[in-house]
Amino acid sequence: VSKTRVAVLGGTGYTGRELLRLLARHPSVELVAVTSRQHVGVPVGSVHPTLRGVVNLKCESLTAEQLAERAECVFSALPHGVSMEVCGELLKRDCRVIDLSADYRLRDPNSFAEWYGMSHRDPEHLGLAVYGLPELFGREIQEARLVANPGCYAAAAILALAPLVSGELIELSGIVVDAKSGVSGAGRSPQAQFHFPECNENTFAYKPGTHRHTPEMEQVLAQLAGSPVSLLFVPHVVPMDRGIFATTYGRLHGRYSQEDLLELFRSFYAKAPFVRVRDEIPGTKDTVGTNYWDVTVRVVNGRVVVLSALDNLLKGASGTAVQNFNLMYGYPQPCALEP
Amino acid sequence: VSKTRVAVLGGTGYTGRELLRLLARHPSVELVAVTSRQHVGVPVGSVHPTLRGVVNLKCESLTAEQLAERAECVFSALPHGVSMEVCGELLKRDCRVIDLSADYRLRDPNSFAEWYGMSHRDPEHLGLAVYGLPELFGREIQEARLVANPGCYAAAAILALAPLVSGELIELSGIVVDAKSGVSGAGRSPQAQFHFPECNENTFAYKPGTHRHTPEMEQVLAQLAGSPVSLLFVPHVVPMDRGIFATTYGRLHGRYSQEDLLELFRSFYAKAPFVRVRDEIPGTKDTVGTNYWDVTVRVVNGRVVVLSALDNLLKGASGTAVQNFNLMYGYPQPCALEP
Amino acid sequence: VSKTRVAVLGGTGYTGRELLRLLARHPSVELVAVTSRQHVGVPVGSVHPTLRGVVNLKCESLTAEQLAERAECVFSALPHGVSMEVCGELLKRDCRVIDLSADYRLRDPNSFAEWYGMSHRDPEHLGLAVYGLPELFGREIQEARLVANPGCYAAAAILALAPLVSGELIELSGIVVDAKSGVSGAGRSPQAQFHFPECNENTFAYKPGTHRHTPEMEQVLAQLAGSPVSLLFVPHVVPMDRGIFATTYGRLHGRYSQEDLLELFRSFYAKAPFVRVRDEIPGTKDTVGTNYWDVTVRVVNGRVVVLSALDNLLKGASGTAVQNFNLMYGYPQPCALEP
Amino acid sequence: VSKTRVAVLGGTGYTGRELLRLLARHPSVELVAVTSRQHVGVPVGSVHPTLRGVVNLKCESLTAEQLAERAECVFSALPHGVSMEVCGELLKRDCRVIDLSADYRLRDPNSFAEWYGMSHRDPEHLGLAVYGLPELFGREIQEARLVANPGCYAAAAILALAPLVSGELIELSGIVVDAKSGVSGAGRSPQAQFHFPECNENTFAYKPGTHRHTPEMEQVLAQLAGSPVSLLFVPHVVPMDRGIFATTYGRLHGRYSQEDLLELFRSFYAKAPFVRVRDEIPGTKDTVGTNYWDVTVRVVNGRVVVLSALDNLLKGASGTAVQNFNLMYGYPQPCALEP
Repeated sequence: VSKTRVAVLGGTGYTGRELLRLLARHPSVELVAVTSRQHVGVPVGSVHPTLRGVVNLKCESLTAEQLAERAECVFSALPHGVSMEVCGELLKRDCRVIDLSADYRLRDPNSFAEWYGMSHRDPEHLGLAVYGLPELFGREIQEARLVANPGCYAAAAILALAPLVSGELIELSGIVVDAKSGVSGAGRSPQAQFHFPECNENTFAYKPGTHRHTPEMEQVLAQLAGSPVSLLFVPHVVPMDRGIFATTYGRLHGRYSQEDLLELFRSFYAKAPFVRVRDEIPGTKDTVGTNYWDVTVRVVNGRVVVLSALDNLLKGASGTAVQNFNLMYGYPQPCALEP
Repeated sequence: VSKTRVAVLGGTGYTGRELLRLLARHPSVELVAVTSRQHVGVPVGSVHPTLRGVVNLKCESLTAEQLAERAECVFSALPHGVSMEVCGELLKRDCRVIDLSADYRLRDPNSFAEWYGMSHRDPEHLGLAVYGLPELFGREIQEARLVANPGCYAAAAILALAPLVSGELIELSGIVVDAKSGVSGAGRSPQAQFHFPECNENTFAYKPGTHRHTPEMEQVLAQLAGSPVSLLFVPHVVPMDRGIFATTYGRLHGRYSQEDLLELFRSFYAKAPFVRVRDEIPGTKDTVGTNYWDVTVRVVNGRVVVLSALDNLLKGASGTAVQNFNLMYGYPQPCALEP
Repeated sequence: VSKTRVAVLGGTGYTGRELLRLLARHPSVELVAVTSRQHVGVPVGSVHPTLRGVVNLKCESLTAEQLAERAECVFSALPHGVSMEVCGELLKRDCRVIDLSADYRLRDPNSFAEWYGMSHRDPEHLGLAVYGLPELFGREIQEARLVANPGCYAAAAILALAPLVSGELIELSGIVVDAKSGVSGAGRSPQAQFHFPECNENTFAYKPGTHRHTPEMEQVLAQLAGSPVSLLFVPHVVPMDRGIFATTYGRLHGRYSQEDLLELFRSFYAKAPFVRVRDEIPGTKDTVGTNYWDVTVRVVNGRVVVLSALDNLLKGASGTAVQNFNLMYGYPQPCALEP
Repeated sequence: VSKTRVAVLGGTGYTGRELLRLLARHPSVELVAVTSRQHVGVPVGSVHPTLRGVVNLKCESLTAEQLAERAECVFSALPHGVSMEVCGELLKRDCRVIDLSADYRLRDPNSFAEWYGMSHRDPEHLGLAVYGLPELFGREIQEARLVANPGCYAAAAILALAPLVSGELIELSGIVVDAKSGVSGAGRSPQAQFHFPECNENTFAYKPGTHRHTPEMEQVLAQLAGSPVSLLFVPHVVPMDRGIFATTYGRLHGRYSQEDLLELFRSFYAKAPFVRVRDEIPGTKDTVGTNYWDVTVRVVNGRVVVLSALDNLLKGASGTAVQNFNLMYGYPQPCALEP
């Protein structure tokens, strides 16, 4: 059976590492290139010691033209702002692209400019982009040439709120998303804040109300609701490697029991192989190392609290990216995503 | 100068250990007894290796009568339900009592029965109890014979909301308190959930809307507001020893800037030696090992988010207990509470 | 293609969980039963939430006879002392057995009695047992009916010393093995010592010179050396979930450079797919989640220091068990062991 | 009573922070200055949020002349190589100096040059330096004008071996020191290796046989033994903030029981207020936040294993520095060092 030729751009960060790990065990993938600006010529196994002997490629610096010759499908784990420069060129050369950066998530280039502080440099392809949450947009993803893979927090928040806003069960303003993330979400570059003795045994909030995943949450939820959605998103860092726990608060329009809402979630996600609707409250550790999003629901005095967990590097990034890839190429969704 | 003779009941848990550590360095305290049901005859330094050579007492089993003979002031770190049995007897014998359990926090014995699943066994002394938050009730604490030391989460939530509800700046219903606590808050008894390999690298919520610190938050805030307050409190466990980060969400009645609210907090807590109102967002680690409560405020679309941190075993328990003791006996508030 | 029918005994601990996870993704395995004494009737996904939807079996209580009817090969993750009672019966019924307990590791039943404080109850099968380190005994494992899977520390220490004692490069007495393990090595039962607030931010040694993995290290190394080997083994617990870092000290008989010894290790393990001889010092994290044993060597003043790392639950237990299974049934060694 | 005027040089790292914290609670200290090259004009409470409201000074840039005018005693927490430039000038101006850098630890400037890769720039004061381990050199420290505070690992290793080499109980060559340190030992500057997601859940060795604390261990132990001592020191990093666990291996000359050696240690350290000789094995957590060094001893087949723990920032640095200060100025040793 012929394999799909795949390249990974920006393979030296944590999402890059997880992508490479998953693609290396994908039976229908031939990994043909890994790019890096800083580590040209360095073996992947030196950049990621855990992948020594697993991925036997060296990091390269390649033009879009060279990439398009080698690969049918390209995953970009480049930083936002950088990614769109390459992705645009790849799309022109008929590569299919799964972009893990933020560059194609917001449909409105003005919104991108506002939240990311730079003008969009590939607006012509924005219209092609499908938001890469397979649980909501699986059909569109199958045909997509360009998938905008969700932000890690956005994946958790949107999945938590989708059944509620789709069914008009909650007020569309005043939603609160209080999320707690492991430190790998901050990337691989050393910073004072994430120096072990600063960050270990420490919990803190950052960017309350101003985090860049806010507009993609609001955009996708508004699309599902058919009306504008406004939410207050406050992310936190907790001292662990991986995992996001999202606690989402909404006001119910009517009287629903916990069991009503669990049933709603079970039915809404009945065909989603990586959603586990549970009676008990999940912990992030139940999901780390897997592509699952675990969720439960509680009702308190007319409020609904959705409590959910995922691995920020897998279901929140590279796992979903591979799931999107599987949809695009007709492979079973769980392929290479076994825990 | 004569010292105050002090005993600690239930000295073998984490709050007991911190109490003993602080009292051992208090220049005006003579520590006369430590009790324990399980470790009678065992030196404190064996129960708490860190206190070897610091506290040279053995754990004893003592009646209220014996305690009252030896000690003028008794700190109780006994479990709720057990504490009130001893405290009542001590009060009858003219001991002053600082109770770290929940037994005297709720004024209404019916509310106690409802939340704690047992009837109150010392209702006659409930009226004596002063809620032991020195930042709010310092004057009453000075004269108190019985101080009900706040719950760790309650301390954080009440301090965060007091300036806002006192000044009627926010709606009194619909407040959300999303708190993240280190594991020492769960006590010293081994449990599956807090076994290291289960709890490390894990974050999860528990008892959403049903945690027992909820009624004391609502009671004290209602007292400050002069009207009922209802809040939705969701605690979480994060993988660290100590510290609570509390994120508190309210709807503002009017238009206030962040600077307005910071100024309100600075002025409200101007005389509180252990409150640090800060411009930047604190982390729990800034407060661990200290008796400080660090706080900042943000305004987002008509909402106020109060972000605050404290050490659950100090400002959230034993540190505040010693601060209350200092007020009761006329010692400077920071005595023995230097970081 | 027909699959091999496999059962797991004692599937509710950490090694059981990892076994189940690996077997669930093994393309040639049909998992037919999981046993547990305590959780009969409980779905695996409730005992191990991470395996919800991955392993769809319930825990059962089965006799050896029932097991032998269903399964061709049985992995036992039962405690030592218990395992041999079942394994003996399974062997009589022609099951092949991979025993992760200590019961068949020591050839001499007297040595077992001395170190484990109980007499051996299945001495008749001791002679069948092959010590399950595929890097050293791969050929014997292929034919084995009974594999005694190594202790986690023993795996690390034996692999570190095998090239040196086989080639008579170091003195056979006076070897020091100083190992540092994550907490999952202590099992899943809550204990005071491993309660998160006790064990987090803590490092300590235990059982210096008396740990039960000592005799299997000495037995296997003596077999390789052709002479008795005596070593001083001191294990330590460090605050992390998984991983063993083993630092092994020996006196060199002759003058060897670091490069000589690295070359020796590379050549000794040339055919071992899960050994990575590296120039730089590995960290446990390079190996966690994989079946690799990473190693480097340093020479200091006539001493050799072997520095190596592995995942105690994979290369130190369940990963090696599956590798042994692959050898026994002729599957490629890395099958189901991709990171 | 008049206080001693004290300055801290290089107050922005972790040892600086702990020094400031301890000095702020010292009843006989007037803290007159904190210097920093990078943070001139910045309040200490901004550099170290935990010290907000505790130390109310700003970081300054001061010449030796200015320092000598203000302070009688100066603690230097400057990096090695930098410290000696200032300390020499301070000594000429009659300041007493406690240097926490490595600059005055080695008596032989050639040894300094060899291990630190730079020539010594203040050799004239080397002869004045007293090695600042109060348990061994208390009398000399009382009179010292210049104290060379020990390296954190050196403190642990020397205390562990001093009773054994002083009494000629062990062979002076072939000693192994295997130490495990928390990450704060690596300082406050962010580095890839100590970025939280790299360093968390990871254990590794570094600089086996080549760490710079080796020569000070050998120098001080040789002084006690009256003969050269050679040891093999391998430090490790474990994922915790603070604490060193040192496992020290030696060959006994004669037959000693564990109790013999515990008795030796108890007697050797009978007058040392911060040594706790224990029957059971200590953990680092027993000592963190205190100035204690906890130790026990085991005998295995003619070998002695000394197992000990301390807080690398306190007993391993700033705590011992304050203890030295107390000796120099006639204050009780434990002053400001209460846990």
